[in-house]
Amino acid sequence: MTITVFGYSASTYSLVIFHILKELGLSYEVVQPSSFEEIKSPDYLATKHPFGRIPSLSDDGFHIYESRAIARYLINKYQGTKTSTVLIPSDVQKAALVDQFISVETSYYTQHLGKLIYQLIFKKRHGGEPDLKAVNEAREELVKTLDVYEKLLEGKDYLTGEFTLADLLHIPATFYAINVAGEGDLWSKRPNVSRWWKNISERECWKTLSVNIN
Amino acid sequence: MTITVFGYSASTYSLVIFHILKELGLSYEVVQPSSFEEIKSPDYLATKHPFGRIPSLSDDGFHIYESRAIARYLINKYQGTKTSTVLIPSDVQKAALVDQFISVETSYYTQHLGKLIYQLIFKKRHGGEPDLKAVNEAREELVKTLDVYEKLLEGKDYLTGEFTLADLLHIPATFYAINVAGEGDLWSKRPNVSRWWKNISERECWKTLSVNIN
Ligand SMILES: N[C@@H](CCC(=O)N[C@@H](CS)C(=O)NCC(=O)O)C(=O)O
Ligand SMILES: N[C@@H](CCC(=O)N[C@@H](CS)C(=O)NCC(=O)O)C(=O)O
Repeated sequence: MTITVFGYSASTYSLVIFHILKELGLSYEVVQPSSFEEIKSPDYLATKHPFGRIPSLSDDGFHIYESRAIARYLINKYQGTKTSTVLIPSDVQKAALVDQFISVETSYYTQHLGKLIYQLIFKKRHGGEPDLKAVNEAREELVKTLDVYEKLLEGKDYLTGEFTLADLLHIPATFYAINVAGEGDLWSKRPNVSRWWKNISERECWKTLSVNIN
Repeated sequence: MTITVFGYSASTYSLVIFHILKELGLSYEVVQPSSFEEIKSPDYLATKHPFGRIPSLSDDGFHIYESRAIARYLINKYQGTKTSTVLIPSDVQKAALVDQFISVETSYYTQHLGKLIYQLIFKKRHGGEPDLKAVNEAREELVKTLDVYEKLLEGKDYLTGEFTLADLLHIPATFYAINVAGEGDLWSKRPNVSRWWKNISERECWKTLSVNIN
């Protein structure tokens, strides 16, 4: 069995996959594209990801792209085989709540947070200047979302009560926002959100990943 | 067993749920919010959807929101009990490809198409004027996506080869774009995309839904 991830250690979507592989106790190889242009090359588009993104994954010849799909594939296939970590429970109602918070994460959290860190971090790295209007709009939307999270997390350690894939998907982008973009206040001034962030960011498997923040 | 959907028959996200319920052979009740304000009321936010959206669903006291999560819940719980339609296969690799195309749909298709139909249809209905810059940007992105779909659908009737949840999720918004916004050219001039649209839009269960397009 050889699992190969095409991705970068600086990419939030790739970090999600590395983190899941560690939680499931799986070993893997990483192949880093040599440049951003490579992921738009005809060969990459034809064999790795037709929309020219990372990550994509190959598992003994089976090929799959899109981080959320890779996540579910790894969990469906390997959960419980090497570690006892449960990222998606088998109970139908419990799994439904995980799916609910995954959709919340996609629709109201990462959508806005992704724009914020793109403007404040990644655009700058590629020599651009942040568009302050876009920064403010993304921050305002994120504030509204975090106010709802503050209520949803009342009396709970994790979104569904227990640590699951829904929590995990929040980690890399939030890590960048707090530790690189300096937006930590958004999380720290909300007591429930702040407690939740502490719980999820202190997962051993996350801490063993070395995030390349430069 | 009583399944209640809080939603509108004009809402693309609600139509996805009605269509799935029909494919699975389940009966259900629809409760329409009396106004758009109702879904932002403290009671709706506390009991139905904390982000103030439709649809949400209740099944014998179990409550869940977010269309993609509701879809998975209904399939996990009821697939195979009343009809033989398979929306998510049990085989791990086949399911992974369904998840892959669901993520493609969310990331590259509905994201742009949603903006296009919002500008061209729903904004107008609420008395606004379409923002032509936003219309053009969304259309350009959608064109790029449909060019990739044209390749992905070469020699295939459906995205994964067989009809699944991944295809189904595309139907309502595409229906609006073609039949209400008059954007049908985008689909009809690409032979594989056009064949695919014919296959999915002619599902019996979809045709029995009366879409309120006014
Ligand atoms: N929907 C994709 C998003 C992946 C994505 O956007 N990855 C970034 C790097 S973090 C990328 O490939 N960017 C290149 C580009 O957008 O051209 C997923 O979930 O895997
Ligand atoms: N992520 C949500 C989106 C649902 C959604 O945006 N529904 C629209 C109606 S089609 C809505 O509730 N709009 C009200 C609003 O955005 O304020 C889902 O998948 O259920």
